[in-house]
Amino acid sequence: MSADEFAVIRDLFAPHATSAGARALRDDAAVLETQGKVVITTDTIVEGVHFLASDPIETVAMKALRVNVSDIVAKGARPVAALLNLVWSDARASAEIATFAEAFGRDLKFFGVDLIGGDTTSTPGPLTISVTLIGKPLGARVPARADAQVGEDVWLIGGEIGSAWLGLHLRKGELSLARLREGRDEMQAQMESRALAQTMPDYLKLPQEDFDAEAAWLMTAYLAPFVRPECASIVSKFASASMDVSDGLVVDAGKLAEASGVGLRIEINAVPFAIPAERWAFTGGDVRKLITGGDDYVVLFTAPSELRGAIEASEGSQALRLARIGMVEPGQGVTVVDAKGQAIAIPDAGYSHKLGH
Amino acid sequence: MSADEFAVIRDLFAPHATSAGARALRDDAAVLETQGKVVITTDTIVEGVHFLASDPIETVAMKALRVNVSDIVAKGARPVAALLNLVWSDARASAEIATFAEAFGRDLKFFGVDLIGGDTTSTPGPLTISVTLIGKPLGARVPARADAQVGEDVWLIGGEIGSAWLGLHLRKGELSLARLREGRDEMQAQMESRALAQTMPDYLKLPQEDFDAEAAWLMTAYLAPFVRPECASIVSKFASASMDVSDGLVVDAGKLAEASGVGLRIEINAVPFAIPAERWAFTGGDVRKLITGGDDYVVLFTAPSELRGAIEASEGSQALRLARIGMVEPGQGVTVVDAKGQAIAIPDAGYSHKLGH
Repeated sequence: MSADEFAVIRDLFAPHATSAGARALRDDAAVLETQGKVVITTDTIVEGVHFLASDPIETVAMKALRVNVSDIVAKGARPVAALLNLVWSDARASAEIATFAEAFGRDLKFFGVDLIGGDTTSTPGPLTISVTLIGKPLGARVPARADAQVGEDVWLIGGEIGSAWLGLHLRKGELSLARLREGRDEMQAQMESRALAQTMPDYLKLPQEDFDAEAAWLMTAYLAPFVRPECASIVSKFASASMDVSDGLVVDAGKLAEASGVGLRIEINAVPFAIPAERWAFTGGDVRKLITGGDDYVVLFTAPSELRGAIEASEGSQALRLARIGMVEPGQGVTVVDAKGQAIAIPDAGYSHKLGH
Repeated sequence: MSADEFAVIRDLFAPHATSAGARALRDDAAVLETQGKVVITTDTIVEGVHFLASDPIETVAMKALRVNVSDIVAKGARPVAALLNLVWSDARASAEIATFAEAFGRDLKFFGVDLIGGDTTSTPGPLTISVTLIGKPLGARVPARADAQVGEDVWLIGGEIGSAWLGLHLRKGELSLARLREGRDEMQAQMESRALAQTMPDYLKLPQEDFDAEAAWLMTAYLAPFVRPECASIVSKFASASMDVSDGLVVDAGKLAEASGVGLRIEINAVPFAIPAERWAFTGGDVRKLITGGDDYVVLFTAPSELRGAIEASEGSQALRLARIGMVEPGQGVTVVDAKGQAIAIPDAGYSHKLGH
């Protein structure tokens, strides 16, 4: 790209830089006026590593922002300002950058974030996007990963586990629509044949005609994670330790346990699986894939058990799929237990956020 | 790389994250405690675009930080905290990351910067490094590019023009040591033959035995730009408009002129060229290459002419190679004039920070 093209690109992003301190992206640095604490995070996504080359450029833009929003929300903070490093692949048409900028701008607006700076360059390699995101904590405390105490409850909030994992595998063709459909039929048949139909929750019975919408939903969960900024309020009020789940529930719970010097006990039956994920696991899918797979982008936090009632009574907790999934215990690592309290062996908890897993 | 390897990498960088808010790089986000204004900038460097694959990994680390320090210094600020996005190429040995981390850490320390966050991932493409740098302004005002006023002086501070350009071309083999040596001999011969020897400044007469040291210096200027944080004080006290020169003097002066809605007149004889660059230009090199080439990393600023004496009397101004190179005038664009005031035509002022130029 020529210098002129870079100027054009800056102009595509400038409309999303509305604060005075952003200086319309025409300066060496942005000026940020703050009082007290801010939180700041940065995450990079790389084509072929964190997203597929065939993913729509609009959702790539959304994912680049949202993986960072997820980190800020997990700290009980409201995202306010972003910087974007766009490393555009020579193999992609420059014209596509306008589409990227539009989608990125839409998402900035959705999350109430102002673009204050960034950098555009080209690369002979894959499209690579770093976003640095600054947030304003809602409370005085910013919960760390390291603050979990033995005896506390372990909570998830912000969405369901497994949608993105199924969506990725649908997109990669490693899981077929037919398999998902078969799964559903099989489960219904099983349940009926075992006279268990009455125990099957209604929500597992999705009408046939909604099936494609369901597949689209799963793929969207992978493409443009559903990050709920409203979680920040509950995290800010109640969380002792907190982090986002982005590399798989068990892996990330392990990081929290390690940082806090405690063990985490997770009851598999309490995990808020996405309905299709629950159905898939119920019909022969390996549930351990769902809790070690990635891209859920929900918040994992711990809180004293005496706050249990207040947390459950929090405004919006239902819609945010709040779920108490376990306990903080002495020791180390993560123990996942079944309904009988038996530990489930978890292989391959070493997810490194590669699409290959 | 596996999750374990990423943990090892984090541990390599953690010693450089000493502030409490950095949380030893073990959290989703850093906490930054600030009062008032901060400045924030981000720049990416890509192997094969901004540095050569054969450049030493130590200087690549230094360059990644310094191109950002340069932006902060140009805003009259002191760099305080950095975030690093390290996108490591699959084609490079992981072991080299330790060398990168060590060099990056040394440079952080040199500039008094704390590492507060970042992200490590791998890529099938070239090594790509983004640094986001936060600075604390030394004064109440943060000079913008847009603040130049007609009638003001145009100044350069922080170093010489042309070293990095020569260094890059030496490194690429497009300029030979022999050519530089010939140049020097030729210039001396010319000057002597024209009985101009007495007008030749002594500093242009480098003893033969220092020649390799000179080549090393030029290459170092390209590899790990000499950014002088002491410039921030003078910029902060006196600059109306300010920016760093990183894409070539004329190109960057053009950006400042455009942002301010003014013209800039630069006297070529007043530009503080590096001695070898001056010599190279004097002996048949095209001086316009030196003022449109890149990677100088000095500060360009404007200031009211009544401050001229105070600026020149500033502590350290000599060592920082302070030079008054022109005037802000009505109109637009950059006019470079020779000793007679004649405009010099500048082709190819569209440098886009590609090594190919």
